[in-house]
Amino acid sequence: MIIKRMLLNYIQVSRYTSTSSVLTTGDKLKQTRVFTSQDLVDYSNVSFDANPLHLDPEFARDAGFHDKLVPGMLVASLFPRIIASHFPGAVYASQTLHFRLPVYVNKEITGEVEATSIRQLKKKYIAKFTTRCFDNTGVIVLDGEAMAVLPTLCPTQG
Amino acid sequence: MIIKRMLLNYIQVSRYTSTSSVLTTGDKLKQTRVFTSQDLVDYSNVSFDANPLHLDPEFARDAGFHDKLVPGMLVASLFPRIIASHFPGAVYASQTLHFRLPVYVNKEITGEVEATSIRQLKKKYIAKFTTRCFDNTGVIVLDGEAMAVLPTLCPTQG
Repeated sequence: MIIKRMLLNYIQVSRYTSTSSVLTTGDKLKQTRVFTSQDLVDYSNVSFDANPLHLDPEFARDAGFHDKLVPGMLVASLFPRIIASHFPGAVYASQTLHFRLPVYVNKEITGEVEATSIRQLKKKYIAKFTTRCFDNTGVIVLDGEAMAVLPTLCPTQG
Repeated sequence: MIIKRMLLNYIQVSRYTSTSSVLTTGDKLKQTRVFTSQDLVDYSNVSFDANPLHLDPEFARDAGFHDKLVPGMLVASLFPRIIASHFPGAVYASQTLHFRLPVYVNKEITGEVEATSIRQLKKKYIAKFTTRCFDNTGVIVLDGEAMAVLPTLCPTQG
């Protein structure tokens, strides 16, 4: 089911832009995705957020938008997904989110997390990240900061 | 489908604790929900976040938790859902999230948004909220602040 949806519904690119095998400040992790209409329906079903801006294109246009909006929290889900895909078992501690521009259905969005500080706490690591989403022209649509507890600094391929 | 899941999978209580028919600072909106194992699978399918902490109880226990953790962004989805269910067409501008305590599968969680400031901007309203989630003993598990653009200050019943 997941594999079928990956093939049909979205483009995913995972890049780990470090030459090191250990997470270091300045390292960036990226993934790109297109949120489809079916994604918006599925997200509404699990979140029970039935805001018509996300489900009804006529409502969205009447409100001044070009098309249905991807729910902000669904866009923001890119950040923990990127972190957890490289560091399974990561625990989220905090996240700030500034929704700068509308994110429309069926448009390519790239999420990026950049490590800004890392400190060891016993056998785990507290990592801070700047978190950004870009549209396909490179404009920031969402940004903020995250802090997560990582079980290791050695990333998987994600 | 949605109605069936509402009946089977979770408890929802919506309360609008204002005597006014217009949103006023100090007003609180609340909804209660239980996140089930199926919710965690469905959320993983739509977010593509496959962190084993959310899907594998053995992995979660080995990491020191009692059971599978509900993804933070899924817990946080309560806030825009509460706002949009009372103000359809609300647009999220920002959200801060501090994940204070683990949220476990099958435990009752209450989300609350409290209006802290409201100002008119042309024909819309910029509203700030404190946002909190409580466990069933009243302990805060998640808190932060949100800002949203509301098309009206007159709430629906949600």
